[in-house]
Amino acid sequence: MQQFQYFTPTKVVFGKDTESQVGKLVREQKAKKVLIHYGGGSAKRSGLLDRVEASLKAEGISYVTLGGAVPNPRLSKVYEGIELGKKEGVDFILAVGGGSAIDSAKGIGYGLCYEGDVWDFYLKKCLPQACVPLGVVLTMAATGSEMSDSSVITNEEGWLKRSTKSDLGRPKFAILNPELTYTLPEYQTMCGCVDIMMHTMERYFSHEKDTELVDAIAEGLLRTMIHNAKILLTDPCNYEARSEVMWAGSLSHNGLTGCGRTGDWACHQLEHELGGMFDVAHGAGLAAVWGSWARYVYQEDVSRFVQFAVHVMGVKENPEKPEETALAGIEALEEFFRSIHMPVSISEMGENLTEEQIGELAYKCSFMDTRTIGGFRKLDREDMAKIYRMAR
Amino acid sequence: MQQFQYFTPTKVVFGKDTESQVGKLVREQKAKKVLIHYGGGSAKRSGLLDRVEASLKAEGISYVTLGGAVPNPRLSKVYEGIELGKKEGVDFILAVGGGSAIDSAKGIGYGLCYEGDVWDFYLKKCLPQACVPLGVVLTMAATGSEMSDSSVITNEEGWLKRSTKSDLGRPKFAILNPELTYTLPEYQTMCGCVDIMMHTMERYFSHEKDTELVDAIAEGLLRTMIHNAKILLTDPCNYEARSEVMWAGSLSHNGLTGCGRTGDWACHQLEHELGGMFDVAHGAGLAAVWGSWARYVYQEDVSRFVQFAVHVMGVKENPEKPEETALAGIEALEEFFRSIHMPVSISEMGENLTEEQIGELAYKCSFMDTRTIGGFRKLDREDMAKIYRMAR
Repeated sequence: MQQFQYFTPTKVVFGKDTESQVGKLVREQKAKKVLIHYGGGSAKRSGLLDRVEASLKAEGISYVTLGGAVPNPRLSKVYEGIELGKKEGVDFILAVGGGSAIDSAKGIGYGLCYEGDVWDFYLKKCLPQACVPLGVVLTMAATGSEMSDSSVITNEEGWLKRSTKSDLGRPKFAILNPELTYTLPEYQTMCGCVDIMMHTMERYFSHEKDTELVDAIAEGLLRTMIHNAKILLTDPCNYEARSEVMWAGSLSHNGLTGCGRTGDWACHQLEHELGGMFDVAHGAGLAAVWGSWARYVYQEDVSRFVQFAVHVMGVKENPEKPEETALAGIEALEEFFRSIHMPVSISEMGENLTEEQIGELAYKCSFMDTRTIGGFRKLDREDMAKIYRMAR
Repeated sequence: MQQFQYFTPTKVVFGKDTESQVGKLVREQKAKKVLIHYGGGSAKRSGLLDRVEASLKAEGISYVTLGGAVPNPRLSKVYEGIELGKKEGVDFILAVGGGSAIDSAKGIGYGLCYEGDVWDFYLKKCLPQACVPLGVVLTMAATGSEMSDSSVITNEEGWLKRSTKSDLGRPKFAILNPELTYTLPEYQTMCGCVDIMMHTMERYFSHEKDTELVDAIAEGLLRTMIHNAKILLTDPCNYEARSEVMWAGSLSHNGLTGCGRTGDWACHQLEHELGGMFDVAHGAGLAAVWGSWARYVYQEDVSRFVQFAVHVMGVKENPEKPEETALAGIEALEEFFRSIHMPVSISEMGENLTEEQIGELAYKCSFMDTRTIGGFRKLDREDMAKIYRMAR
């Protein structure tokens, strides 16, 4: 087990009707002027935004609103939020939505405390030194951004999707009411399930040995996701299944499943470029590349893939043929992705990659040939192109 | 799954030599004068205290020291700390030790912010409204107090062992270096292992259904403990095993394994009275009463004990005879306790309970016949006496 830091200061308030506590929770943070940032119209149409505003009003807290967070959230919206926040003198940001609203809110929070261009942080030119405090009312279980230190933003100039990480951006509180996710379309729900699983899997595929407890937590989380995603396919208003998925989403990306080991994260990097180029849903993009990544890298440590196959996918181990067991585990996960109507190739997402596009994706993903990705197996620009090609 | 709050703001810094970071971590908290509270002489003899003091000095942070925290930490020491802290104007408390030093430190922290008698909080007369911030350098994996909200103190007047809970008492940081636990005697190590397991088991035995993820985490933690406690029996300086146990200790009592359900806690309450009367090690006392508690209550929900038997103890399920499977699980855990040289009865702890003592224990444990204990099965004074008698 390697050295690690674990820091998850976000207060989680989980359960039915918990959004009614938002005013009290903002009050605890001693906020005076709140910027409410939300996504599409559903928060408005469903009445959630009204309930949130009523709860703030009841506590005498003033606020301004900014809608329009979209999947693969845009830098222009972050700039808009920073401008509005400065003008209105906000001292707290409340994200009402999924990962897009939260990631934008983090960007706005960093930008409000910084004289320069907030994109600097995403280009890793420098690290955030402060952030306006944030809170979250979550409406989609997926990115785990409600407890995580990361924010992913897409710059429309060049469609670059980049991330920044800082403990300063971890929300002060997160309100998790599984009922708020009942009305999500099946496709979004399942994209979220894939994203949640991948946050754990990106940490799980590692060469670090002796991570027994962390492995057990990760494997239990993945089994829980597989079981409950299937339930939601036919019973989307199942409170218990929505609860398991929502709580798994937060724990999957708050650091818990990665303690003591270096993660991989290649699939996330590969997908970021797909998301930037085609604006595909993040979870679908991850499902589309994972199998190809896995087959490209599994020989680096077959035993790890065997453990995954047996402990997570319930594959019967063939001790004499570990490769067979490893590959059966990869197939079993792809089969699961198919069963929840997720693509297992880029063409199944409706995109037919040209060789030129493959080259462009690999060029961008390698930061113009200046970086490698992947902790399980280091991948250069050429490897990336091969995986995109396999995943076509 | 029930509504829950999950709040674990403690920054964990885990790994070899991490105690050298203590000065930097205290500085982050903007502390000016630190009260270092430590236990017996081992922190001094081992040179740990010197290293901690050197790290504070290097950051220019002044401090005073207070030794003498003992197992089942005493109220008189808390009073002493409060007096010293007031006199010296401390604004931060650093516990260097195990649960005793941390629990005392929490008591001192509460007392320094309170005009009345700090024992009021432990008698549940009122709740703490503030606490001087705390940090921890952990030297024993057991109580989980380094991330928990609880403090357990024994009042020498009447030998009452009582607890108080508040998020205000959760440490700001916890330094976890598994190497610092190498020199613990086997008995203390194994008492710690039992305590860690019981923090999860007290949460696990619950009537709440649909806690799939939390169950998986709990079961994985318990299996990890069983595996690694056995390793430490013959190889006490095994870094990986010490690491698994230490991290399990923190996660077992920070709330993670209880999210969404009401715990039981009867064994802890029963043991607190034994600890008060005989000053026995907490973990040993828990091992001594658990089997009797389990046999007394398991019929409330046999399926829960079957799940424990199969998922944790590896018992083969007999679907036609669930009681048999449940009882086999109880026996298997007792067998494990024996294998790590822990008592499974009070006489094995070296105490021969008289009927009079049983009556006294039950009287005290029922708060002079004014409360029941237990969430899995509600236990009154008479039930308590029966369990003490079974555990004799």
